[in-house]
Amino acid sequence: MDDKLMLMIPGPTPVPERVLQAMAKHPIGHRSADFSAIFAEVTENLKWLHQTKNDLLILAGSGTAAMEAGIINFLSTGDKVLVGTNGKFGERWGKVCAAYNLDVQYITAEWGKPLDPNEFKQALEADTAKDIKAVIITHSETSTGVINDLPTINQYIKAHGALSIVDTVTSLGACSVPIDEWGLDVVASGSQKGYMIPPGLGFVSVSEKAWKAYETANLPKFYFDLGPYRKNAAKNTTPFTPAINLIFALHAALGMMKQEGLETLFARHDRLRSATRAAVKAMGLPLFGPDECASPAVTAVMPTGVEAEKIRSIMRKKFDIALAGGQDSLKGKIFRIGHLGFVTDRDLLTAIAALEATLQELGHTGATPGAGVAAAGEVLNR
Amino acid sequence: MDDKLMLMIPGPTPVPERVLQAMAKHPIGHRSADFSAIFAEVTENLKWLHQTKNDLLILAGSGTAAMEAGIINFLSTGDKVLVGTNGKFGERWGKVCAAYNLDVQYITAEWGKPLDPNEFKQALEADTAKDIKAVIITHSETSTGVINDLPTINQYIKAHGALSIVDTVTSLGACSVPIDEWGLDVVASGSQKGYMIPPGLGFVSVSEKAWKAYETANLPKFYFDLGPYRKNAAKNTTPFTPAINLIFALHAALGMMKQEGLETLFARHDRLRSATRAAVKAMGLPLFGPDECASPAVTAVMPTGVEAEKIRSIMRKKFDIALAGGQDSLKGKIFRIGHLGFVTDRDLLTAIAALEATLQELGHTGATPGAGVAAAGEVLNR
Repeated sequence: MDDKLMLMIPGPTPVPERVLQAMAKHPIGHRSADFSAIFAEVTENLKWLHQTKNDLLILAGSGTAAMEAGIINFLSTGDKVLVGTNGKFGERWGKVCAAYNLDVQYITAEWGKPLDPNEFKQALEADTAKDIKAVIITHSETSTGVINDLPTINQYIKAHGALSIVDTVTSLGACSVPIDEWGLDVVASGSQKGYMIPPGLGFVSVSEKAWKAYETANLPKFYFDLGPYRKNAAKNTTPFTPAINLIFALHAALGMMKQEGLETLFARHDRLRSATRAAVKAMGLPLFGPDECASPAVTAVMPTGVEAEKIRSIMRKKFDIALAGGQDSLKGKIFRIGHLGFVTDRDLLTAIAALEATLQELGHTGATPGAGVAAAGEVLNR
Repeated sequence: MDDKLMLMIPGPTPVPERVLQAMAKHPIGHRSADFSAIFAEVTENLKWLHQTKNDLLILAGSGTAAMEAGIINFLSTGDKVLVGTNGKFGERWGKVCAAYNLDVQYITAEWGKPLDPNEFKQALEADTAKDIKAVIITHSETSTGVINDLPTINQYIKAHGALSIVDTVTSLGACSVPIDEWGLDVVASGSQKGYMIPPGLGFVSVSEKAWKAYETANLPKFYFDLGPYRKNAAKNTTPFTPAINLIFALHAALGMMKQEGLETLFARHDRLRSATRAAVKAMGLPLFGPDECASPAVTAVMPTGVEAEKIRSIMRKKFDIALAGGQDSLKGKIFRIGHLGFVTDRDLLTAIAALEATLQELGHTGATPGAGVAAAGEVLNR
């Protein structure tokens, strides 16, 4: 049915009605006191969500823009960087580094498996010359639904002294990323994920240590030069025209998140992850990636006996539910259920119920129809 | 009064109700067929507005992002470029070039004066070695309300063979910029101006000649690398997550512009420019910049006897009308009336009437109260 779409993809995520309405307000001048007041409150609340006192800068651009800014502001041509890759986004950050002629050393894991913290430990301990200037890691790998052990890896980075540059695009807002407690240097994310607003804003938090590196970093940049963003943020403004209406939306969304509270917010995502995985197992579908490193934002399923794309197609056509497909080499092999942002227990039950009906239509015989909803319900009622 | 703001600034410009409503729709997946259909239509209609068959690429970012992409995709380290500057934005493009270690030669004019096409002619004719790879010009200088003689300057660029890279941020949609007829290579603009939507999107059109230069250009880029945008646009999609809801808004806005028609659209802006200037003269206020190079988007006024900032303050507080101030060295010396995008004859009369009431309050004695509205009305009724 038209206008009945339900997003269960890892971005864009559903947007609350009151956020859409805030976004639909007439724009105001971005150099006005009224806008600065909103911008100040948004920045303050973003710091609350990011659990940091570091600078929190807002760019008009996607998550990739924020991550590129997070990389190029703190490094110089030829600098050695260690990049962890176990999915599409880890690979992308390697490509960004290559585009800027950085000397990239990869630590890889198979797509669907987590990065091994010990490999970082060894590589960093072996670098007694301290040639490695930064370590770049994707926290929640959106392409596979795997969350990497960031706190452990970051311990090794801190022991070495390199900067940590972290993609938290699908983890921030979905699970606790205590930036200051962990001591993360540069943390980048995007608006259409845990932040419950449409795409178009990128966020970068920057530690004092990273600002120190900024002073001597020589990679060319202008729009992405975070120095002017910092200087302007201190005056509650931006160096270039901000995406005003998305700031309105973020203002409303952060208000809702503050009302929910960090603990409840993270517990909700944790519950949705567990319920999704329990349901998928009960439906007799193989999960892609182990429980121990399951992302709170997105769950990947690698069905056998039924085609992933057929499942997606029926879910979309018959039930107006959008699921994500696999990317690159996983195209057609997996489907992904997004459960981050403005997603409730009811939404998850809805998606699971529709998935079971879809499996029935496809003649899937691996499990008793209804078992998925029962398993999800059991987790949700804990 | 709250929620009664009227924007008469050169960006953000007023947004029509139906555009705000289109923007407030729930986002859909950007990798869906539904989104691709909208994206295809938006691209097609943008080409109509830009009067071009060249590639028309859409970035999530501000106008500065689009302009930076327009510069760095087609040049290599050390390349010589000729940059025209007669205001804040011309100066900004020089800074972008400097940030990327380009060899910048400036052609300057005083703020408020137009660039002299003959200076371009001389500089380009003197460059017999063809060292100058590109000429960068701001068409409508938003900071001063001056429009540069782009078609004439571009003739000299074509005779020389360098690429033309043009900032049309406040000219596109406000006056005719026939990209193909003039033979412009790279044309960049931003969404919150003539396009009648909020900020957050940048547009770049690229000629075949520019794509040829792209092949050997070596400046580092990733998010701004237009090659992948071109490749993806051919499949009605984008390399990175687009600002989905701003695309919805643009879809609606372009629909309105098509309904109005190019000729009517440009005639309206021409009429608003003439009426504004006639009114300002009739009010006894000095225009900043001569009539011959007056921008159809914004009119700058340099009041004498009354303070520019006092005028702006009363206009804002008493009549909820936002006017723009001066930038950099013009701060406090001029005010600027934006009249581009979703602005009608009625809006202009409103602004002029309020401006006259403001001048009365400030005890301005240079003209008969009512003369401004009378002069504007005379032009509008032509």
